[in-house]
Amino acid sequence: MDANGAYAGDTKLRTFSDAVPGFLSGVGSPREYLEQCLSTIEAREPVVQAWVTLNVGGARESADASARRYKQGKPLSSIDGMPIGIKDLFQTRDMPTEQGSPIYKGARSGNDSALVRALREAGAIVLGKTVTTEFGMSQPGPTTNPFDPRRTPGGSSSGSAAAVGAGMVPVCIGSQLLGSVIRPAGYCANIAIKPTLGAIHRGERMGNSQSHVGVHAGSMVDMWNTTYEVAARAGGDPGYPGLYGMAATPQALKPRRLIVMETEAWRQVEAPTAEAFDRVLHSLRKHGVEVLRRADHELVEAFEQSIADNMAMCRDLIGFEGRWNYENMFDRHPDLLSESLHQRLARWRTVTREQYRAILLRRQEARNRHAALAHVGDALIALSSNGPAAFFGDQTGSGQGIVHTTGTPAMAAPSSMLGAPSVVVPLMSVHRMPLGVQVVGQSHGDERTVGIARWMLENVPVASVA
Amino acid sequence: MDANGAYAGDTKLRTFSDAVPGFLSGVGSPREYLEQCLSTIEAREPVVQAWVTLNVGGARESADASARRYKQGKPLSSIDGMPIGIKDLFQTRDMPTEQGSPIYKGARSGNDSALVRALREAGAIVLGKTVTTEFGMSQPGPTTNPFDPRRTPGGSSSGSAAAVGAGMVPVCIGSQLLGSVIRPAGYCANIAIKPTLGAIHRGERMGNSQSHVGVHAGSMVDMWNTTYEVAARAGGDPGYPGLYGMAATPQALKPRRLIVMETEAWRQVEAPTAEAFDRVLHSLRKHGVEVLRRADHELVEAFEQSIADNMAMCRDLIGFEGRWNYENMFDRHPDLLSESLHQRLARWRTVTREQYRAILLRRQEARNRHAALAHVGDALIALSSNGPAAFFGDQTGSGQGIVHTTGTPAMAAPSSMLGAPSVVVPLMSVHRMPLGVQVVGQSHGDERTVGIARWMLENVPVASVA
Repeated sequence: MDANGAYAGDTKLRTFSDAVPGFLSGVGSPREYLEQCLSTIEAREPVVQAWVTLNVGGARESADASARRYKQGKPLSSIDGMPIGIKDLFQTRDMPTEQGSPIYKGARSGNDSALVRALREAGAIVLGKTVTTEFGMSQPGPTTNPFDPRRTPGGSSSGSAAAVGAGMVPVCIGSQLLGSVIRPAGYCANIAIKPTLGAIHRGERMGNSQSHVGVHAGSMVDMWNTTYEVAARAGGDPGYPGLYGMAATPQALKPRRLIVMETEAWRQVEAPTAEAFDRVLHSLRKHGVEVLRRADHELVEAFEQSIADNMAMCRDLIGFEGRWNYENMFDRHPDLLSESLHQRLARWRTVTREQYRAILLRRQEARNRHAALAHVGDALIALSSNGPAAFFGDQTGSGQGIVHTTGTPAMAAPSSMLGAPSVVVPLMSVHRMPLGVQVVGQSHGDERTVGIARWMLENVPVASVA
Repeated sequence: MDANGAYAGDTKLRTFSDAVPGFLSGVGSPREYLEQCLSTIEAREPVVQAWVTLNVGGARESADASARRYKQGKPLSSIDGMPIGIKDLFQTRDMPTEQGSPIYKGARSGNDSALVRALREAGAIVLGKTVTTEFGMSQPGPTTNPFDPRRTPGGSSSGSAAAVGAGMVPVCIGSQLLGSVIRPAGYCANIAIKPTLGAIHRGERMGNSQSHVGVHAGSMVDMWNTTYEVAARAGGDPGYPGLYGMAATPQALKPRRLIVMETEAWRQVEAPTAEAFDRVLHSLRKHGVEVLRRADHELVEAFEQSIADNMAMCRDLIGFEGRWNYENMFDRHPDLLSESLHQRLARWRTVTREQYRAILLRRQEARNRHAALAHVGDALIALSSNGPAAFFGDQTGSGQGIVHTTGTPAMAAPSSMLGAPSVVVPLMSVHRMPLGVQVVGQSHGDERTVGIARWMLENVPVASVA
């Protein structure tokens, strides 16, 4: 954490990309880097509980193999030798994939998800599987927030966010249907990207029309390198062009004009968080960046209206698309589904095909209105959540009859529905807990979005409200 | 087969929808209908070999439960009590899903695919799993053509087409990535639909951007009823509106103008098939239907050019999208993959992301050119394949380095790439073997396409060339 940040804790892990020149010149090695990760895991895992499974033996072998490649001056990619955690929704051939559910306890497919295969091809070290909420929905796992163990790490990519936040690994893979990358990343001070819809191949997990693979990292360069190298090998989802962009991490790009996206979660934002966000906006203006709000422009207001009940839309959309899958589990293992999932399923059963079609039309309209903002501002900015990570037990209702035990995803969900790239940077501290600012760009503008987020990270001081 | 048809064999099975009034008035029952199916299976299966697994006990229980509903005057749907075969690529909770591969011999997921669940909810009887080629690709199963056991039934939905063609069941579920519904349906004298892309939920099989669920049937009404009832319950693929249309089978709709689609397979069509097709066109003209060919209209020529190397495009598209999945199998069970699949995988590895993106653009251009024909003609018509089912051993090269042991899919593949509905009707007989005519409509125009196909079935005599 920079000197101007105020939240507790500090990730001592060196950015992976900074260590690579040493690997090539003989100072340090992927194995030494891995051992540092394992030490941190040993020290912090008893409290943080970010991991479901660790493959330490396999990781050490991979690190040694990587070290040999560096010695020969022939690393496979910019992430050769990087230890990475995989959200436990994605298949790994050498570890179980339990999906946060007792139904899949110990379940092994023997296969690698497309992105996992790509990581291995790039030389990365698949160190372990990170905790997810039950099937990426509400029911939380055991993970605690690395900055305060009394608080949630967020979800559903709980373990991925916490492992990076605790400095256990430089990068973790997450996934986002609503706010499952961006929200926990903000709670855990990660830098993270949920790229354009379809940018990274989802492998076996293609049951929903707006879920995304995302990347949590401790630095902008590690984040981009991982995103790029995976997409270059696995491609995007079937039918999508995949991630656009070059191998080099986008340079900082100063925006001329940014648009504040409030979302339906804005009314839940409490004073300290609002104050911290205002300070960020103030810093932006001091740098000469114009900041537009919904009252300033009719198209911004029209856009906000199109996402005004985004959470209800997404709830029904997700339910209609995925219901059959959960009905199978309900038939076979009703006792192994959480009460939260039982409640969801009961709602999902009420969604009709005509309602679903209407939601698709409204989603397209929201996407159109977002596209119309392309030349109104360089990007949208928003909070990564309506406040910092809540204490366990302070459950958040979404107002849609669903309790979100890992915090409400409502701030992050619009970019999921839009399919637009979102990058979160840790620019605030509220009650000594980290909180992020999202930069949301236009679809396929991932490079540009990362560039703006990078400029903010390098130029906007962390706004701290006690 | 009507009196004017000349190909050998006859499906003696009564159309299911014709039997339903009896079920309600006490003449016959779903159980009696099922027993008739089982008798036919017993008689013909030793030669036809359409089934991988039969669940006779479960089917009898389901039939009896259905009979009770009819007695109470409360059937669940228009297909309550209908015995159906499921292509063995789709999961069924009570039977293995082997995918035509020894790798999955006996593999049980315990789950129902979305469409299978929908069938059960509609009261249909899931009688068994039908033979597919290996993973729906080239390597054939043991199924023979019900009209000549020395010939292929087509593929990849080999068992589904043959079971319907042999009168074993009124309906089977198939799937199509290139020509896997339309081609075997034509070889086996089925009436079949490959609906608009995304019209029927593919459940766990969403790894390809242009694969479809299709329905094989012995009659137009059974075909539509099944398509409608499944789509009404399972919905379409995630992100798609699903099948549009009403419950009642579309009435016969006489077209004013039809456009012949030649495709790249036209040059492989031999004289007897060309003659049979010409007679169909002649019959259409006698009914006052104008028939346009590519020389007659610039937009038709432009469309044909956009699909001129459709097979090569599809080969690379399919390879890029699905390669990771087959790489997993290759790593684990190289000896259990066919030589044909080894060859495919070797090709697929050469496809780059930039090539894939270029194919997506060209696919979109073909779709645009097809859409431009919406007001040039009421539909496209084409052969269902370049000729009748070949003898085993007469393997067909696609000209793309891949051998198609179940006949080339090149005639049917364009509608897969276009995502447009295609309905096939058995309107020709060549060398005493059945052959179909495809009617290809505009996307989401499934009802209209079925209406035109129905009009043709009812008004165009079978063209027989010895």
